[in-house]
Amino acid sequence: MRRLRMGMIGGGPGAFIGPVHRIAAEMDGEIELVAGVFSSNPGRSRQAGEVYRIDPERAYPDLGTMVAAEKARADGIDFVSIVSPNHHHLPAARVALGAGLPVISDKPATATLAEARELAGHVATSGLSYALTHTYSGYPLVREARARVLAGDLGAIRKVVVEYPQGWLAGAAEGKQAEWRVDPARSGPGGCIGDIGTHAFQLAEFVSDLEVTEVLADLGIVVPGRLLDDDCSVLLRFSNGARGVLLASQIEVGEMNGLRIRLYGEKGGLLWRQEQPNTLTIHTLDGRTEIVHAGGSQLGPDAAARTRTPTGHPEGYLEAFANIYRDFAAVLRGESAPLLPGIETALRGMTFIDTAVRASRENAGWVRLAV
Amino acid sequence: MRRLRMGMIGGGPGAFIGPVHRIAAEMDGEIELVAGVFSSNPGRSRQAGEVYRIDPERAYPDLGTMVAAEKARADGIDFVSIVSPNHHHLPAARVALGAGLPVISDKPATATLAEARELAGHVATSGLSYALTHTYSGYPLVREARARVLAGDLGAIRKVVVEYPQGWLAGAAEGKQAEWRVDPARSGPGGCIGDIGTHAFQLAEFVSDLEVTEVLADLGIVVPGRLLDDDCSVLLRFSNGARGVLLASQIEVGEMNGLRIRLYGEKGGLLWRQEQPNTLTIHTLDGRTEIVHAGGSQLGPDAAARTRTPTGHPEGYLEAFANIYRDFAAVLRGESAPLLPGIETALRGMTFIDTAVRASRENAGWVRLAV
Amino acid sequence: MRRLRMGMIGGGPGAFIGPVHRIAAEMDGEIELVAGVFSSNPGRSRQAGEVYRIDPERAYPDLGTMVAAEKARADGIDFVSIVSPNHHHLPAARVALGAGLPVISDKPATATLAEARELAGHVATSGLSYALTHTYSGYPLVREARARVLAGDLGAIRKVVVEYPQGWLAGAAEGKQAEWRVDPARSGPGGCIGDIGTHAFQLAEFVSDLEVTEVLADLGIVVPGRLLDDDCSVLLRFSNGARGVLLASQIEVGEMNGLRIRLYGEKGGLLWRQEQPNTLTIHTLDGRTEIVHAGGSQLGPDAAARTRTPTGHPEGYLEAFANIYRDFAAVLRGESAPLLPGIETALRGMTFIDTAVRASRENAGWVRLAV
Amino acid sequence: MRRLRMGMIGGGPGAFIGPVHRIAAEMDGEIELVAGVFSSNPGRSRQAGEVYRIDPERAYPDLGTMVAAEKARADGIDFVSIVSPNHHHLPAARVALGAGLPVISDKPATATLAEARELAGHVATSGLSYALTHTYSGYPLVREARARVLAGDLGAIRKVVVEYPQGWLAGAAEGKQAEWRVDPARSGPGGCIGDIGTHAFQLAEFVSDLEVTEVLADLGIVVPGRLLDDDCSVLLRFSNGARGVLLASQIEVGEMNGLRIRLYGEKGGLLWRQEQPNTLTIHTLDGRTEIVHAGGSQLGPDAAARTRTPTGHPEGYLEAFANIYRDFAAVLRGESAPLLPGIETALRGMTFIDTAVRASRENAGWVRLAV
Repeated sequence: MRRLRMGMIGGGPGAFIGPVHRIAAEMDGEIELVAGVFSSNPGRSRQAGEVYRIDPERAYPDLGTMVAAEKARADGIDFVSIVSPNHHHLPAARVALGAGLPVISDKPATATLAEARELAGHVATSGLSYALTHTYSGYPLVREARARVLAGDLGAIRKVVVEYPQGWLAGAAEGKQAEWRVDPARSGPGGCIGDIGTHAFQLAEFVSDLEVTEVLADLGIVVPGRLLDDDCSVLLRFSNGARGVLLASQIEVGEMNGLRIRLYGEKGGLLWRQEQPNTLTIHTLDGRTEIVHAGGSQLGPDAAARTRTPTGHPEGYLEAFANIYRDFAAVLRGESAPLLPGIETALRGMTFIDTAVRASRENAGWVRLAV
Repeated sequence: MRRLRMGMIGGGPGAFIGPVHRIAAEMDGEIELVAGVFSSNPGRSRQAGEVYRIDPERAYPDLGTMVAAEKARADGIDFVSIVSPNHHHLPAARVALGAGLPVISDKPATATLAEARELAGHVATSGLSYALTHTYSGYPLVREARARVLAGDLGAIRKVVVEYPQGWLAGAAEGKQAEWRVDPARSGPGGCIGDIGTHAFQLAEFVSDLEVTEVLADLGIVVPGRLLDDDCSVLLRFSNGARGVLLASQIEVGEMNGLRIRLYGEKGGLLWRQEQPNTLTIHTLDGRTEIVHAGGSQLGPDAAARTRTPTGHPEGYLEAFANIYRDFAAVLRGESAPLLPGIETALRGMTFIDTAVRASRENAGWVRLAV
Repeated sequence: MRRLRMGMIGGGPGAFIGPVHRIAAEMDGEIELVAGVFSSNPGRSRQAGEVYRIDPERAYPDLGTMVAAEKARADGIDFVSIVSPNHHHLPAARVALGAGLPVISDKPATATLAEARELAGHVATSGLSYALTHTYSGYPLVREARARVLAGDLGAIRKVVVEYPQGWLAGAAEGKQAEWRVDPARSGPGGCIGDIGTHAFQLAEFVSDLEVTEVLADLGIVVPGRLLDDDCSVLLRFSNGARGVLLASQIEVGEMNGLRIRLYGEKGGLLWRQEQPNTLTIHTLDGRTEIVHAGGSQLGPDAAARTRTPTGHPEGYLEAFANIYRDFAAVLRGESAPLLPGIETALRGMTFIDTAVRASRENAGWVRLAV
Repeated sequence: MRRLRMGMIGGGPGAFIGPVHRIAAEMDGEIELVAGVFSSNPGRSRQAGEVYRIDPERAYPDLGTMVAAEKARADGIDFVSIVSPNHHHLPAARVALGAGLPVISDKPATATLAEARELAGHVATSGLSYALTHTYSGYPLVREARARVLAGDLGAIRKVVVEYPQGWLAGAAEGKQAEWRVDPARSGPGGCIGDIGTHAFQLAEFVSDLEVTEVLADLGIVVPGRLLDDDCSVLLRFSNGARGVLLASQIEVGEMNGLRIRLYGEKGGLLWRQEQPNTLTIHTLDGRTEIVHAGGSQLGPDAAARTRTPTGHPEGYLEAFANIYRDFAAVLRGESAPLLPGIETALRGMTFIDTAVRASRENAGWVRLAV
């Protein structure tokens, strides 16, 4: 059982998310980063390769070169991980899939919905695996929340509230992380709605096991001069008639990465917060409140299998991310990982962004979400 | 400096809010409950009078009798407190004001907007004081939050999120507290939006010192067979262009009385939660987070004057309520209490309910809120 | 059912605890403050009487005068409440009991153990009621904690940890509240151990329903020049062999009134914190954690009877204090209130102070606590 | 800059701490696990090697074989990591150091103080690096806490309270993790005091930058039939005269891994909790409370360099552990890592255990802690 070999696209000097992908991929000892095109600047790509401590020859100047060189090696890469800004996702995935390499990609899937549809075609044609790193669905207690919902502990779901407050773009968008996110050319038509709203959307559907069927979107640009939305309020309707609210903002000063989700059914309610990810709060109609602990004896099998430490030894963002990679590794080995976000999730997310942006621009009221 | 004498209307056996008004009114030793029409059933009114330990003669069978009898006494009541269901508010206030008695009333002001306008006329004609018990604006740290906003600590306000989740009406609406709240004849056209949405609305305007100018309302009936809304999502625009969200629900199982408000400006953000009312969290753009404690040295004069205990000795709901009565007593004594909610707040609240109900029914999108 | 009439001893201008006793006594409408010797300075006593809005004639210059005058009235006081510094407790109680007036007193019972023993004699001789305001045992969830322990939910108790951190005496002891507390002539031989350690001690015995049988005390004076202990660590043994720790400090900067208690038995554990008094956390050996809410359906009868508001409407310190007065009123009416701290608790508390002070001074190791 | 190569001793099937060391060592891409003696049973050692996905040839049956084989390879291990039960630490370290291999070891350093002294001799003789994985001192906010103390933000330290409650040994000690911890032959003379008390002791000295000079220890055996302490209360005195309390227990049902530390000085106080490791609370004498966030702009350089993610993206136990390995890797590369716990910390910890066990057994009162 050798480790799977990963080639990274993006993640060069100054990137936050590249090292995160590297740590997450390697955490469970099933994957190792061995190659990459870390920057479109060959010198910077080499420099990043040194930081990642890979063989200098395998820090490539461009994707074509990487694919050709790796294909020629006996120990060539098994898949690529795409961690560059959104507008690079489709071109990179097209080349990788075309060369027979499975793809795991940061979200959102592409810059535009049209691109996502093209991507879906490539995935289908290639017959290869494709996964999207919706990190937050990798948290053990998110898995537990979903399991409890599916087990009927809450009864029929009536209401979903998902919030994703951040404050880091309340001022000018400075620095490598910020600049591309506020640039339509690199980010696509969605700003906040694409960057974090899509996480909230995926989480809501993931935990509820319901599909959003209608949205009423109000996307605003709060910081003067910005070209993309930075504050989003979206009302939701789900396939079973449940009501929902999705709030995402990047201008709420002091908010860090406050993703949280609450679900309420006929018989119970639950609450999970990303910033305190190791507890899940469950309420029942008779007035009881239970705290479920990561690593604890109350967890179902899916959550239990995704914790590495006993209760009280906090795991966090990197471990959740690693759970996504672990599922991807399982898929590449031919095992099943039904909860790994794939191309269908990718299409739903891009449709959500596209629908919300258009509906808000047109002040259209309730609009169907049709993938 | 004798204590002011209060006559209560409503608050009979089984009522939750009557004893709360009694405790709140008397807490600071400035007011005493001496008379009342606690029930429209004379026997039950007498019975309640015994529980309140007032002179049995002063537990009256109806308002007319009380007004006449109290007017005839040297130690007659100085004002009335109306704590009955909404549809009684206007008739009771009309009689009291007509008899020269100032009025303090539970919220919302009346059952309908038309009634509120009539009430405003009576208040104006009488020249008497009228106050509305928006309890939550009596909390010291809500006063502090407002003071910080007015001092410019947050810069220009850009976003207000106010949430009021409850779960107690997730099942059948049983018991004295619940039954009238889901009955249009007694509650008026608003259910959840009137019962708690109006608290959230008042809090948002109170803390931000801004007026809501537009709403987009989506009021739902979740529990089958119910006649009034029990789950509300409302998007807001404020007079300075700030964006807002108001969520109120009574079907979110496990939520107790989870009113909370967050405001974000150009320079900072703040958070206050009713269930943990003795701390106020303040964030600044440079990444600092400060916790302000009730009773502590960081409080401004308005908040400091409304705490009775040192830090770490928690005050709560009853003390906040008492702060409203303390302001009302001050007004009756001829002092100023500019933050006491009065007839203008009453009209704004009823307009909010009326506008939200109509806008939601008509699926009208953004609608102006015009008082 | 008229209200009982209270005469207060102490609580003059600048006192924190006098108004607290007044609010607590009157909260449930069963008691009213009508008379007092609020200060040993007659002018200041009158001045306080005005603030309390009592009949000016009944703000007396000294206790003898009050007792004589009130005895002569048809509507004279029913009992006295002693809220002055410790060294006044015995003299005041002696006079009151001698005049046939029941006594409720702030803690600790007296300045010295010898005084407490004398007090116990007076109480016995008089046949009158005596109560001690150990406020914290009035909290509903403290009652619930005790009920759960008695019900065997935790199994045999093995460990009790009670902590009472404060920071307000970390600097110079300035102001009326502080000055007498650091003065052996007014406070007695115990500083922190008497002022708050005795609360912690009472709480530990109250919730566990066990008696402390041995202590190992280490009382320190941290602030230079201080004459009484301001930082205390005490190890405990209980009657059933359980181990315990009691920590109390008044020099822990930033701590407010952080009383908290944890109990652990063979089958479960529980945690209660005074600063978040409306939740009780319960753990069971199988890994479950339950949150019990004040006002909620999970409460036993004793706790339920001591909450005034539904879940989510926080009650606090004043309401807990009022529960002590409510029990005292019940006793005066001839009802039973078995959990009201009385003269036995008073003796145990003074014995604890005396034993801890001596044991620490002599560095005596484990010492029996013999009342 | 190749990755350093690690050989593990211990960490076989069923071990919790082996995989933790593997993840921590590899997290930052500076170290890779390539060899090991994972069990004294050769078959089980091979089996573990498969799980770790190392070259099957390098899963050795015993330490002598590993050392010989690895020395003979061009790509042999650079150091060993000892993760087996305590009684193996000294023999393993002796062989490794004798073979010229630096050692990183789980805590406590050895089973007995005599062994620790022998170990110190081997370390000195070898001239090689030795590190002890006191994980908790690797948390960024623990580093920040220490930096704030050293900067004088709290003034002279007066009081340290460190608590380490656990509950997992409240019942019978079953399973691989538990069995050796309650066995004197494998654990040494200390149970809870050695397993977690020593972490608390190291944390207290680390954050305060003070040395404990005296202890008063009360170690108890709560679970019937157990041979080693499972509940510990220790009073402390520090080199500057500061007072301290150290509580550690493994029988507190419901407690998970509740290590927490509070320090109080003349000017301020601070609080850090391992289960919520991404915030540090700081109080100042003027009544202000600040929350410092991991990853945030308020961090000093030492803490900032040890966070991998922005604020709001929680890091946890594994990342703290990785920070210890990162420091060790730095030392092996010839860089400085002054805060990495080494042989001096090892000796202090073993002296603490030895002193506390003896003092408690003899009921000796205050005893000097002399390394």
